[in-house]
Amino acid sequence: MNAATLPIITAFESSPDQGQGMARDMRVRWALEEVGQPYDVRLVSFETMKQPAHLALHPFGQIPTYEEDGLALFESGAIILHLARRHTGLLPREADARARAVTWMFAALNTVEPPIVELEQAEYIAGDRPWYAELKAMLENRVRVRLAQLAARLGDADWLDSAFSAGDLMMVTVLRRAEDTGLLEDHLNLAAYVARGKARPAYQRAFADQLEVFVRSRPRAP
Amino acid sequence: MNAATLPIITAFESSPDQGQGMARDMRVRWALEEVGQPYDVRLVSFETMKQPAHLALHPFGQIPTYEEDGLALFESGAIILHLARRHTGLLPREADARARAVTWMFAALNTVEPPIVELEQAEYIAGDRPWYAELKAMLENRVRVRLAQLAARLGDADWLDSAFSAGDLMMVTVLRRAEDTGLLEDHLNLAAYVARGKARPAYQRAFADQLEVFVRSRPRAP
Repeated sequence: MNAATLPIITAFESSPDQGQGMARDMRVRWALEEVGQPYDVRLVSFETMKQPAHLALHPFGQIPTYEEDGLALFESGAIILHLARRHTGLLPREADARARAVTWMFAALNTVEPPIVELEQAEYIAGDRPWYAELKAMLENRVRVRLAQLAARLGDADWLDSAFSAGDLMMVTVLRRAEDTGLLEDHLNLAAYVARGKARPAYQRAFADQLEVFVRSRPRAP
Repeated sequence: MNAATLPIITAFESSPDQGQGMARDMRVRWALEEVGQPYDVRLVSFETMKQPAHLALHPFGQIPTYEEDGLALFESGAIILHLARRHTGLLPREADARARAVTWMFAALNTVEPPIVELEQAEYIAGDRPWYAELKAMLENRVRVRLAQLAARLGDADWLDSAFSAGDLMMVTVLRRAEDTGLLEDHLNLAAYVARGKARPAYQRAFADQLEVFVRSRPRAP
């Protein structure tokens, strides 16, 4: 694939997390780095994300999207699964091991991420309400349950199902969204698992690339 | 595959929704019926779901699980994707169309389902609080946004990406969880889409089978 036909992903023009790598393009960047696939990035603003051109690519007006030779995808899980089928390095070759790794992708996105994102969202929608503290405590308890179950399963293994896979890539990025809650610190093995993911050279390249977008977009000091 | 080696799924011994088919085993049953794969069901109680034997199959203590010839999976998305790879009838054969159908599976599970489940969960965790009505209104607004975006994309098409696929199967079951909220009724095309899914013979066989579990488990009138 030459430069003229590089796949293109979308990412926030102005990173809401100030370059901490919490946005979902980080997952796709990391996967692209793991498989060694160069790519281009098109930056979108919160305004352009709601315009028809972007909605044609992503019906829910979010990032990331992925375009390649006439194929347009959205949803980080679907994009990473697509990359995993085109390249080696994200899923085991053996069919049963592959199905188990895919299971961890879905577990990250449908079982572990929702209560974490909900805790985050509650602050946006109800952070100024007198009852927010009570709601927050309830939502934290749900996250605690999920983290305890995940920690019990991981035990002292390095990755969720023997070798590193797209399931771990997804789970590490999901757990990173709980970093600011302090809840991850209850489980040393989960904290070490996240650190192990972040130590991968592909993660570090992806992180540096998304951070650069933020640094470039930041207004310069006078 | 003969009777001795049928795949086994787990389902609730005592259906929390009284046989309305909202539990996630419904999705897997529907997929199994679409591909014509017979299966066995092992019923689990809320107590046995928290025991080590079930946690070994499903680290988050939920249903459904899927066992087949030494392979054990959990997460309805992963199970259905596995079935789609083993059988025809759930995903298009052409690679790009297949990737787009998989995108709708992830969109159903990671973008549309979380705000719907959250609205449901809020009643469980905070239904008795004086501020519940205020929270509920906020959560309903989030569901409204997602449904409007999905309705805009579906338009007057029968299915989300030309032919029926596992992406539609997943989306229909996710939308069904919003049926009781009344929010689906704002979009005639989404209501018709759900009805189209429910009219499929495979859906109806799956629904009847899970309803039978509830009817059998119900204490008889004296």
